[in-house]
Amino acid sequence: MPLEKMKAAWIPRFGGPEVLEIREIVRPVPSPDSVLVRVRAAGLNRADLLQRQGKYPPPPGYPAEMPGIEFAGEVAETGAQVRSWKKGQRVFGLTGGAAHAEYLAIHERLIAEIPPNLDWKQAAAVPEVFITAHDALWQQAELRRGETVLVNAVGSGVGIAAVQLARAMNARAFGVSRTPEKIEQAKQYGLADGIALRDNLDELAAAAERWTAGKGFDVFLDLVGGSYPSTVQTMMALKGRMIFIGTMAGSRYELDARYLMSKRLCLRGTVLRSRTLEEKIAVTQSFAREVLPVLANGTLRPVLDSVFSLGEIVKAHERLESNQTFGKVVIEI
Amino acid sequence: MPLEKMKAAWIPRFGGPEVLEIREIVRPVPSPDSVLVRVRAAGLNRADLLQRQGKYPPPPGYPAEMPGIEFAGEVAETGAQVRSWKKGQRVFGLTGGAAHAEYLAIHERLIAEIPPNLDWKQAAAVPEVFITAHDALWQQAELRRGETVLVNAVGSGVGIAAVQLARAMNARAFGVSRTPEKIEQAKQYGLADGIALRDNLDELAAAAERWTAGKGFDVFLDLVGGSYPSTVQTMMALKGRMIFIGTMAGSRYELDARYLMSKRLCLRGTVLRSRTLEEKIAVTQSFAREVLPVLANGTLRPVLDSVFSLGEIVKAHERLESNQTFGKVVIEI
Repeated sequence: MPLEKMKAAWIPRFGGPEVLEIREIVRPVPSPDSVLVRVRAAGLNRADLLQRQGKYPPPPGYPAEMPGIEFAGEVAETGAQVRSWKKGQRVFGLTGGAAHAEYLAIHERLIAEIPPNLDWKQAAAVPEVFITAHDALWQQAELRRGETVLVNAVGSGVGIAAVQLARAMNARAFGVSRTPEKIEQAKQYGLADGIALRDNLDELAAAAERWTAGKGFDVFLDLVGGSYPSTVQTMMALKGRMIFIGTMAGSRYELDARYLMSKRLCLRGTVLRSRTLEEKIAVTQSFAREVLPVLANGTLRPVLDSVFSLGEIVKAHERLESNQTFGKVVIEI
Repeated sequence: MPLEKMKAAWIPRFGGPEVLEIREIVRPVPSPDSVLVRVRAAGLNRADLLQRQGKYPPPPGYPAEMPGIEFAGEVAETGAQVRSWKKGQRVFGLTGGAAHAEYLAIHERLIAEIPPNLDWKQAAAVPEVFITAHDALWQQAELRRGETVLVNAVGSGVGIAAVQLARAMNARAFGVSRTPEKIEQAKQYGLADGIALRDNLDELAAAAERWTAGKGFDVFLDLVGGSYPSTVQTMMALKGRMIFIGTMAGSRYELDARYLMSKRLCLRGTVLRSRTLEEKIAVTQSFAREVLPVLANGTLRPVLDSVFSLGEIVKAHERLESNQTFGKVVIEI
């Protein structure tokens, strides 16, 4: 039996968006505990841009040439031991790479069923941002109802997902963005208030005081890094939690133990992509248990910035690289 | 009925050990939910030295003139609502201050019963170091059997308590001290291995590699601060926990999010003295539940550096201030 073929985005060499190609390559074959997914749409992520630039090698087992870390599609085949999925079911999830292709083989415990109210494009905008924000905010920060959260880069995909997850928990989310328009857009998704700041964070202190009535933030979701951690440590509430998941503005933090100790702060660095299979399964299953119901009833809404076809992969990369996006860039496949 | 008197250590003005006096003052009267303890022995702590220097005001409700944050003694009187204690019972615990006196009034839920195998001096050497190390290592760091712990200032009271608590958990404790002799002494309490370092921490990396077989430390209990956090962040294991409870060498930490994120580290600052009553009760009760049995069976051993009478309070302060101590300085009262 000849091996079947498929189209896939391909990185022949590291460089700008223009290096990207669409190639016809061999379709993967699912192992006994995996399913083969016919990908219908897939989100584009900063990790894909970095992989294309040669700055973010995918984990072992995923080819450096194939970007794509999230997908939505239908089950096309199931491995011999798979009992929980049937051909034709609509599924989505995260993967270590190779999702910007017509077919993807993935472990049966790393996918979740798409709620009926989401189409392919909307579903493709869910996994990366909602799984990341859910793991950071609900799981690691242990956000509780009535608490306050500060999110920077609040206009980013993860930022907006975090705002929605905070609101779904009856917590109040406050935000910072470099762009005033993104603050206003984020308010449509539940942001209680926000402030547009560029490199000077001085105005944040007065805003924090006002927003939290002097109590400080219970949770800080840091998507930016740089001077944020040292600035925000002074604005945290007693027993506050600072979660570090991004370092676009720099990774060296100057922290002061006097704040950490007197407020008994908890700081966590986190990253999803390098986790073990069993940890990724746990994250996926807790997402399915806790987040899918709130996605299905419309409380959480996927946010689409723009949609491109697989043939327009270069344009899609250019769009995300522009930093003008609000919500997800999605590729239809 | 005339108010009864008692002797107490007194700080008439801030300064060196020589300012300390023994005064005769009014004996406290227990509130309905408190007991009056006839203090028999009390540990001396760095907090007392700082309070004497005017650098560490006690929490509200405790006079600035009266040092003493831990004690062992017998119940002399019980408040009207107290049902859990009887006159004559041997108790110990932590307090916000005023423990270096013949009598101390304290909430009935903030004391625990002294195991029969400990005399007054030994019992007085327990609360501060074992409650602090237990809260940090077993509770906050969630130390598990088989894990590795790095403790700096391993010759300090809390350091040795941490070593013993790690060993009681079947974890392996490694230590740093400025003094080679303290490493050898700590080995008698279960330290797996240690290294004497002064300001240059370069040798620690090779030791960490050797001790943990390249895996890194699961827990770092930082009693020193300064350059330790930035040095040790590179030596932590995946999902390691760094607990900050001391800043003798400085409180400004330079941390790198790349370590924090790729290893998914959890950092916690902690301090006991400023906690709320209900938190202190929780800490005391969990100490009583988890630590008393291992104290009673001799697995954990209080470590006495030296014993002074209340009249020798100046000498006691001088001894602790010398930084030559190994284990606790205790005052008999």
